[in-house]
Amino acid sequence: MSVPKVTEDAVLKRTENCSLLKETVKGYDWNQGINYSELLKSYLHTGFQATNFGLAVEEINKMLKKRDEKLSEESYVDADDPFVTVNSNCTIFLGYTSNIISSGLRETIRFLVQHKLVDCIVTTAGGIEEDFIKCLAPTFLGDFNLKGDALRDQGVNRIGNLLVPNDNYCKFEDWVTPLLDEMVDDQKNGTIWSPSRVVARLGERINNEESIYYWAAKNKIPVFSPALTDGSLGDMMFFHSFKKFGLVVDIISDLRRLNLMAIKAAHTGVVIVGGGLIKHHINNANLMRNGSDYAVYLNTAAEFDGSDSGARPDEAVSWGKIKKDATPVKICAEATLILPLLVAETFAKYHFDKKNVK
Amino acid sequence: MSVPKVTEDAVLKRTENCSLLKETVKGYDWNQGINYSELLKSYLHTGFQATNFGLAVEEINKMLKKRDEKLSEESYVDADDPFVTVNSNCTIFLGYTSNIISSGLRETIRFLVQHKLVDCIVTTAGGIEEDFIKCLAPTFLGDFNLKGDALRDQGVNRIGNLLVPNDNYCKFEDWVTPLLDEMVDDQKNGTIWSPSRVVARLGERINNEESIYYWAAKNKIPVFSPALTDGSLGDMMFFHSFKKFGLVVDIISDLRRLNLMAIKAAHTGVVIVGGGLIKHHINNANLMRNGSDYAVYLNTAAEFDGSDSGARPDEAVSWGKIKKDATPVKICAEATLILPLLVAETFAKYHFDKKNVK
Amino acid sequence: MSVPKVTEDAVLKRTENCSLLKETVKGYDWNQGINYSELLKSYLHTGFQATNFGLAVEEINKMLKKRDEKLSEESYVDADDPFVTVNSNCTIFLGYTSNIISSGLRETIRFLVQHKLVDCIVTTAGGIEEDFIKCLAPTFLGDFNLKGDALRDQGVNRIGNLLVPNDNYCKFEDWVTPLLDEMVDDQKNGTIWSPSRVVARLGERINNEESIYYWAAKNKIPVFSPALTDGSLGDMMFFHSFKKFGLVVDIISDLRRLNLMAIKAAHTGVVIVGGGLIKHHINNANLMRNGSDYAVYLNTAAEFDGSDSGARPDEAVSWGKIKKDATPVKICAEATLILPLLVAETFAKYHFDKKNVK
Amino acid sequence: MSVPKVTEDAVLKRTENCSLLKETVKGYDWNQGINYSELLKSYLHTGFQATNFGLAVEEINKMLKKRDEKLSEESYVDADDPFVTVNSNCTIFLGYTSNIISSGLRETIRFLVQHKLVDCIVTTAGGIEEDFIKCLAPTFLGDFNLKGDALRDQGVNRIGNLLVPNDNYCKFEDWVTPLLDEMVDDQKNGTIWSPSRVVARLGERINNEESIYYWAAKNKIPVFSPALTDGSLGDMMFFHSFKKFGLVVDIISDLRRLNLMAIKAAHTGVVIVGGGLIKHHINNANLMRNGSDYAVYLNTAAEFDGSDSGARPDEAVSWGKIKKDATPVKICAEATLILPLLVAETFAKYHFDKKNVK
Repeated sequence: MSVPKVTEDAVLKRTENCSLLKETVKGYDWNQGINYSELLKSYLHTGFQATNFGLAVEEINKMLKKRDEKLSEESYVDADDPFVTVNSNCTIFLGYTSNIISSGLRETIRFLVQHKLVDCIVTTAGGIEEDFIKCLAPTFLGDFNLKGDALRDQGVNRIGNLLVPNDNYCKFEDWVTPLLDEMVDDQKNGTIWSPSRVVARLGERINNEESIYYWAAKNKIPVFSPALTDGSLGDMMFFHSFKKFGLVVDIISDLRRLNLMAIKAAHTGVVIVGGGLIKHHINNANLMRNGSDYAVYLNTAAEFDGSDSGARPDEAVSWGKIKKDATPVKICAEATLILPLLVAETFAKYHFDKKNVK
Repeated sequence: MSVPKVTEDAVLKRTENCSLLKETVKGYDWNQGINYSELLKSYLHTGFQATNFGLAVEEINKMLKKRDEKLSEESYVDADDPFVTVNSNCTIFLGYTSNIISSGLRETIRFLVQHKLVDCIVTTAGGIEEDFIKCLAPTFLGDFNLKGDALRDQGVNRIGNLLVPNDNYCKFEDWVTPLLDEMVDDQKNGTIWSPSRVVARLGERINNEESIYYWAAKNKIPVFSPALTDGSLGDMMFFHSFKKFGLVVDIISDLRRLNLMAIKAAHTGVVIVGGGLIKHHINNANLMRNGSDYAVYLNTAAEFDGSDSGARPDEAVSWGKIKKDATPVKICAEATLILPLLVAETFAKYHFDKKNVK
Repeated sequence: MSVPKVTEDAVLKRTENCSLLKETVKGYDWNQGINYSELLKSYLHTGFQATNFGLAVEEINKMLKKRDEKLSEESYVDADDPFVTVNSNCTIFLGYTSNIISSGLRETIRFLVQHKLVDCIVTTAGGIEEDFIKCLAPTFLGDFNLKGDALRDQGVNRIGNLLVPNDNYCKFEDWVTPLLDEMVDDQKNGTIWSPSRVVARLGERINNEESIYYWAAKNKIPVFSPALTDGSLGDMMFFHSFKKFGLVVDIISDLRRLNLMAIKAAHTGVVIVGGGLIKHHINNANLMRNGSDYAVYLNTAAEFDGSDSGARPDEAVSWGKIKKDATPVKICAEATLILPLLVAETFAKYHFDKKNVK
Repeated sequence: MSVPKVTEDAVLKRTENCSLLKETVKGYDWNQGINYSELLKSYLHTGFQATNFGLAVEEINKMLKKRDEKLSEESYVDADDPFVTVNSNCTIFLGYTSNIISSGLRETIRFLVQHKLVDCIVTTAGGIEEDFIKCLAPTFLGDFNLKGDALRDQGVNRIGNLLVPNDNYCKFEDWVTPLLDEMVDDQKNGTIWSPSRVVARLGERINNEESIYYWAAKNKIPVFSPALTDGSLGDMMFFHSFKKFGLVVDIISDLRRLNLMAIKAAHTGVVIVGGGLIKHHINNANLMRNGSDYAVYLNTAAEFDGSDSGARPDEAVSWGKIKKDATPVKICAEATLILPLLVAETFAKYHFDKKNVK
């Protein structure tokens, strides 16, 4: 008996001339010592998500290069709304979820906003309030397996392996309540409050350079958060409504601001860290311009459940939310591990290179 | 040479008298034939997520039993707002994401709402509009791997392995625009619009018994969706704002409605399908009453990334969002596979049993 | 100001005549009452993984239909090895991991083997020994969050939310050691032991109709497990080697058996529950015949990490492990929730229908 | 109406003096510029998986420190088997799956083996052969979405987003077949082949410093792979068996080698990249010594399905596979993104620091 022909043909099938076989897989050469920048460069040719990391670095660097080009059309200036003015040839939308700000990634986001490396932010209620609360008291490291009932007894809230004393939220109430009073007064004088205007007001008042929204207000970077009531800030608004009823927070005027930013932009890039509302909201705004030009997703969600959170960029292409000829990248990874490295190889290099030139 | 003592002791360690060893694992006995109801009963003793399914069935059935009990306190009646009236001894909050309504689970949700088996809904913008759009034109089966650029060329949008012709959204615009006109007029006459009031209005007008929100409006079940602008309805509101400017949709008045429902309820149960905004929003409302009494999560998210989506119920216990002595359950599973079975073993049995008694 | 043209064109893009838009998404009609069989039929048109469930039912039913057809070629009979004889027109390979047998799915697998509904099994060491051990003492329900050190002190082993007293493994040693003695003796008389032959011997001796491998031995269904030493059985073989040295368990002779089964089969279908070794081993054997004709995967792994566990069936097509014109299906789901339902709608219906005809 | 008391008490619950609140969450300070080493140090206090990365760095560094201590007991020397000799005070077991070697992580593993930074390897068949095949021809970058049938037509195999020309496997056959001939001859002269001895033989013959197993053979680091037949090497053994029948590869003798290494070690550390067989096999060997002293897992699997792949280290503690007083760490992450950084901060720093001292 010899090897059956079907078997030999199947196992030893010859390779046709195939144009796909171009880039060789090759890891870092450790014998050159530990050079992190070179190591991260080697990711592009390492395969799996390391390759996606390498591609995402390239994609963000394309955004930044485009941003530095002369504005391809006449700049849009909104006399009434300096926040939506087009400042550069590529408007960068940054989205992130609440847990990002609870974690030490807050400092990375702050860096981006402080140095005007992004133009527009979309986040959740928690993504807003956790930043302000950290100005009042710290968040602590914990453990994923601490027991909920014992923590509740001690007034300690768990966020994954982080712990936030409930006292922090009490301090937040003390700080925010007078500001809500003011807003009601302003409303009486004609202000129509929207989530982004509320965030800007809080940012103007926090007076703390550690705060993302301090810098967002200062740098006129709008922060959208349509479900702003869904968190501690909402709790405080609810409490406040018993004292001074009638504050209205309108979501349609924010929609106009956000969509106009996308429409008026010369080009757009989106960097979305996490899923849910923030991912959809940025992409939907970019549909208004027939798609973003550049896109990077960083999240842990998978597509098998049909959620928008887990949808690959190619799903957004079908909707016209990312341009058909774009080269979007998704990195399937947990953000605390990857976002700092991604920022280091893109926004931070760009920023420090520029500073050094000056 | 003989077996080392350390090895023998480690491998053949004896079991102490352990009170944990009570319930034997045992699967379905197939030799009794195919009896689905018995098969699903066997899940409780099958282990892994099947056991969680069994526990979730018990948890929801506890909600329904409590619901049938005489109201433990005097009922809360809000003369101005029939939607937030307390009707039973257990107020059930149902949350779901947009993809649930895009899928065939829409019919399951509709069943729950039509027969008043839940009392309050929280969903996303897509979770609203996809239901109305399905009244105008169908959604189709597709494939996760269809190419985005080709689909865009044909005006076909992909949601996982589903396809929605973009024409459906055009039809939605035709239907919704006159209703937005009306809302602006009503606003001039003093109406303060909020997402839940917008949904109720649309529900009153759809005139289609296949619609979830037709029944929600009819049955006075409030539907909360703070980020109502984040979807096609938002697109239409944006378009409409160029024709008839000034519609305001307020999220604070909805926060009051939702929180009051939780506070005034005699007991509460939460059933949350998916993550993100809807999960947090329902739990946060239940913090207002120091925690829900019963809770079931059904989603695919994991806790390792510190997201609220992936947080286990025990994390919500630390926040006071679920009661300390509750027995909450999370089923880690994709909803289309599990929600119909879960409803069958709980809400549907309860409903049909009641009907048969009558 | 009016809606910008780019926006209107992007949002209201018309749908081209698209041949993809055929099958309408539609969920179960609850107003017909609870009919589980109809409910599971509705999964095909429900979308996401429910649709994959529906497709998997079709795929397995294709295997079973093909199995009933007259053998398309002359049957292969191996006079020396009745286990690898081709008995039908479609040889079905079933693979599963250890945890499946720890859970209550053991009874489902046993049903398939008892009634000769599959022809070949590939599993891990744990997938073997857990079945035998359950004949000696039960496994119990536990909780994912029980503490490891406390359990170790009590001699209780955790498998997810299951608990196995360590005493069970002591009982296993008592049972298996004399059988290992015998095997050494048989080896002296010329037997070349391989994992599948070891399993068959144990199956012949367990004398318990609850055991999968009792039926496998009786029904001449071979059970492959190349890393048979990786578990408690290995521990016992290791211990035994100090008493009676020299037992050899050869993996090459099993490779020949498994590959010949694939090559000689008229058609093949594969049903793989879980990932890792068992998934690859079945697929690799089917490469020997230039691909399986039918394939169903059921597991929780995702492809982003480049693992074989998470690879979609289409990756196996590129290797020639699944036929190019096959219609393989992957259900992304946890097995305890889905395997019983999948078996009910396929193997069990087929079996009970046949029995009723007789 | 004022805020209900239950609400105020629930939302504004005060924090008790809680000993858990010690380590403040704090991210990288970007204003110090890009310093990767400092940035990775900041991970420990960043939360979520970044904290687990920081803990894993500490855990591996503990292994390395222990390794440098004087052997706490008399060294074990196996005169017959230099591979299982105890060389240091901490024996490090390294496990990885096949895809790791297909990717550019191969170079990282090679670095560890070349410089004797690990003492024992457990991998799968693919984890062996992919290394040898890369000595014969390269692997290429591809895309997760390339179509399987088109690739098969061209004789190109996909592994996630990597491509391996099938010709590479033909070259492997040419290289390995004469070596199998030799092994049969050696067997006739009394050699009992086991997977680890086969790998050592191939390593001795590859004569290529790029190969992991070249260095493993040279450095007498044993490589265990009980299911060695499950891959291309198995295909070649199968083919070869038609030419020269009778090669026996015994898995029991390898079990003895592996278990003895664990038992005789003064201390052990385990580093396991991926799940399935390799994870269980290393842990099971460490049960023989009543648990490893140090443990790091790096994988993408989750525990909800009860698989050993997704089990947290604490599950292994219940089995006695990790010591009760150990501080094991799991990083939930995809390996190509994390392993190089983990090696950089541990093994590589240790190695280069030592070299510089000399």
